[in-house]
This record gives sequence, C-alpha cells and structure tokens, in this order.
Amino acid sequence: MIELDAEQQQARDWFERLRDRICASFESIEREAASEAKFDYLEWFRDDDASGNSGGGVRGVMKGKVFEKVGVNVSTVGGAFAPEFAPSIHGAGENPNFFATGISLVAHMSNPHVPAVHMNCRFLVTTKRWFGGGADLNPALPKNEDTADFHAAMERACAASPTGDYPRFKQWAEDYFWLPHRKVHRGVGGIFYDHMEGDFDANFALTRALGEAFLDSYPMIVRRRMATPFTEAEEQALLEWRGRYAEFNLVYDRGTSFGLKTGGNIDAILMSLPPRATWS
Amino acid sequence: MIELDAEQQQARDWFERLRDRICASFESIEREAASEAKFDYLEWFRDDDASGNSGGGVRGVMKGKVFEKVGVNVSTVGGAFAPEFAPSIHGAGENPNFFATGISLVAHMSNPHVPAVHMNCRFLVTTKRWFGGGADLNPALPKNEDTADFHAAMERACAASPTGDYPRFKQWAEDYFWLPHRKVHRGVGGIFYDHMEGDFDANFALTRALGEAFLDSYPMIVRRRMATPFTEAEEQALLEWRGRYAEFNLVYDRGTSFGLKTGGNIDAILMSLPPRATWS
Repeated sequence: MIELDAEQQQARDWFERLRDRICASFESIEREAASEAKFDYLEWFRDDDASGNSGGGVRGVMKGKVFEKVGVNVSTVGGAFAPEFAPSIHGAGENPNFFATGISLVAHMSNPHVPAVHMNCRFLVTTKRWFGGGADLNPALPKNEDTADFHAAMERACAASPTGDYPRFKQWAEDYFWLPHRKVHRGVGGIFYDHMEGDFDANFALTRALGEAFLDSYPMIVRRRMATPFTEAEEQALLEWRGRYAEFNLVYDRGTSFGLKTGGNIDAILMSLPPRATWS
Repeated sequence: MIELDAEQQQARDWFERLRDRICASFESIEREAASEAKFDYLEWFRDDDASGNSGGGVRGVMKGKVFEKVGVNVSTVGGAFAPEFAPSIHGAGENPNFFATGISLVAHMSNPHVPAVHMNCRFLVTTKRWFGGGADLNPALPKNEDTADFHAAMERACAASPTGDYPRFKQWAEDYFWLPHRKVHRGVGGIFYDHMEGDFDANFALTRALGEAFLDSYPMIVRRRMATPFTEAEEQALLEWRGRYAEFNLVYDRGTSFGLKTGGNIDAILMSLPPRATWS
C-alpha cells in the first residue's frame, strides 16, 4: 500500500472524479445514439514486487456505437525507478524513489467525421513534485470548426491559471505529436506541458482546467459530427489514418516506450492502439 | 550511379533473379485461386543527395486473393552512413562508406490458416564484406506440419554450405523474433544470420540456399492451406495476431528503426506492416 500525502491525495481524487464524469458523459452520448454501451472496468495491482513497486489502477474500456473503442486509465503507483531509467526522469537522478498518479484517455471513433482524441494528466513526485498533461485532437478528416473549438477550449484552460502558457503549450504539442519519418503531425494539436513544479495550487488549477476544457469541448464536437453520413472511402481514410496513429504510439510516444521497457501493464499501455487499422 | 565490383554484381544479380522467381511463383498461386492478381512494381532512386548517397530499388506489391498483401523489395544503395550511425555498423566505425544490396519480402495472407512469412537477405560492404539473411514463418494459427516443413527446409539450406550452422541460426531467429513486452515469439521461427564474412563463395552459397529453401517450402505450405475454410473467430485471431506483428516491426525490428531514423523510403520500409490489423 502507498501512503499518500495531502497533495498526492487531492490529485488522485480529482483524477478519479474526472474519470467518472468523462465516462458518464461518453455513456450518455452512446444512449443518444440508441446504444446501451457502458464502460467495463478492470482493476489491476502491482503490489510489492521485487523492486518494491506498488500501487495499481483501473482500466476502463467501452466499445460502443459512437465510440468504437475508448479507454480511460487511472493509476496511482509508487516505488523506485530501475537504475537505468532513473537518470532520465526529472529529479530521480540521485534518488530513484517516485510516486505517480494520473489519468490517460484515448478515444477511437466509429464515424470518420468524428475526431479521435487523447487526453492525459499526471502528478509526479521524485525529489521534485510536478504536474504534466495535455490533450490533442486527431481527426482523420479535419474540420476547421472542430479544430478551432478544441484549441479555444485549451486556450481557456491555460488562461485559468497563472502558470498556464497557451502559446508555449500549443507549440509543445506541435513539436511532440509529430511523425518525423512521414513529416506529418499526428493530428491537429492541442496542448502539452510537463515539469510544472513550484506552485502546487496554480499547477493543480491548470490541470483541473485542462480536464474541464476537455469535458466542455470534446463531447460537443462528438455530438456535432456523430450523425454525419460517411462513404466507404472516408472509412478507408480513417483506417489509414489510424495506421499513422499506431506508428506514432509504437515508435515515438515516450509513455508507450517507457511502459513497454519497464514492464508495465501491457493492456493499459497499449490501450491507445486503434481497434482497427490498415496499411495499404 | 554506383559502380559494382564483381562480388557486388553477383549478389545483386542473384537477388533480382530470386525476386523474379518468387513473384512468378506467387502469381501462379493466385492463378490457381482464379485470381488475375499481379505484382505492381515501383522503381525508386536515391541519387546523389547531400550525403552523397545514391542508388535505389524496386518495390513490388501484390494485393491478391490468396496473398492479401505481399511486398518484395530489392535495393542496391551506396554512400556514407551518418556519423551518429556509422559506429553501430559492422566495419563502419572508422570509415562510414558503405554499399548494400538485398532483397526483403513480407507476405500477409487472406486465409488465417495460411502463415504469413518474412524473408530477407543482403550483402553489405564497409571496411568488411558480409552476408546476412533469414526467414521466419508467422502463422496466426500454427500447425505442426507447416512448422516442421519450414524448419526442415531451413536446415537443408544451412547444410548446403560449409558456413551454414542451423542450430546457431535457428536460435538466433528465436532470440531476435521475440516481443519482450508480451513475452511471446513473433512466429514459429526459422533462421537468422548476420556478419557472415570471410569466404565469399561459401556465404553466397548459404544465402542462395536460403532463397532456394524459401521457394521450396513456402509456396508448398500456401497451397496446402489456402482452401481451408475458416470462421469469423479465426479471421479475428488473424487480425489480433497481426497487431502483435505490427508491434514487433515498429518497436523492435532493427531494420525498421534504422530505416525510419535514417530517412529511407517510407513505403519500402513499412511495406511489412499488415494490410489490416486490430487491437481489441
């Protein structure tokens, strides 16, 4: 068992409440589409293994009519980074002990006109304490209106906290969600930030504002597009686009590589992969 | 233009003839299945760019009835490895100049009872000169008879040359085609070898024997299974299995990583990815 201090507990509780609200919101979209789909939850533990790591999480997955596959993980873990990884982690170079709590979400949508989305936020403690987070929109068939609405929501999130910096976080997302081998962005961007340390209250407010902005914007975009008719060619474009998404996550995504190489929960780490994809 | 010495030319000519024979063999299988599918060939060049690299290749792809997607690349390139890569290449630590000629093939099959297959052989010249190669069988639904026949063919290939060493090459394939994050092999193995230098004639004979063993065994296995009826669940197993195959190629395969990071021809590098895959 991990003992949480007051900040760790606040962060974890908020991530879990955010998960509940997101899942309820997505299930209500399914009901509007005359589907009974609900999230299935699977709890996993990683208790007191040889490295002294412990904790666990809950993997939630819904396979519905509008949401072809959406996964939401919350996890709270602690222990010590392996010696070969510790130096690459902020504040863990001299002392490998860590605590991490976070939420991550990826939604792959049935209708090629509805963008896929990714959202993730986390609170990390080593010899430093910081928040990281981000959200990016991933349409196979981009629409200016959706992109503008999503970016505006992320800009409002940044404005909600003195430590928010929209231009910098937007650029960070553009730099990060990039496939160098194809010289294309993974999607139409959003925000990304990391190592937000110092003022816990301000950075927690930033992270909460990201979660609220996600809830304000993404369900609205889904509802706007979910009934749009689509052709076979548009569905094929979606499946090709998902191939690019899988390439990004397997080749470049730091969280995925880190998880695979440190023996994390495979199903949780690879939850982001698309339910169907093609490489023509 | 690259000037080839006598050994380079012999190797390249043999790889190109092997390609012609394989493509003819696969097209004749399609005809037996009442399909008119043929390979499409796309020539690509990489001439005299800033790094002085030159050469090119031909990418052949067939999308047929039995062969859902099969790609065969031959390429012959030369130049200088980038300084950050040269030290990791056999014989290129002090002098980055290289020449490479080779063939690579990946077949993804429509019927889940027909195994996918990979075959690759190459002749490399740096300050060293060597052959490398291998072939492995990748069934979604393994069958002992197919595995035994494929392994027996690879064993005969190794016996055809004084430098062949079946137990070592078989183990090398087992070690290489392994997904550590899932703790499973990619397929049922075959052989893998690299850095076979010294006796050109013997190592070229080994490499030719690998090509012949492939032609002797794989089309026979395809014909044995291509008419087997399959269920929807078996097709689903194929698509799930292909997800694992894509994970291996994108996360671990040295050729893929090397190609992506050195700006190679993307379509040729990623030709190995499955036409359809699922992650449930």
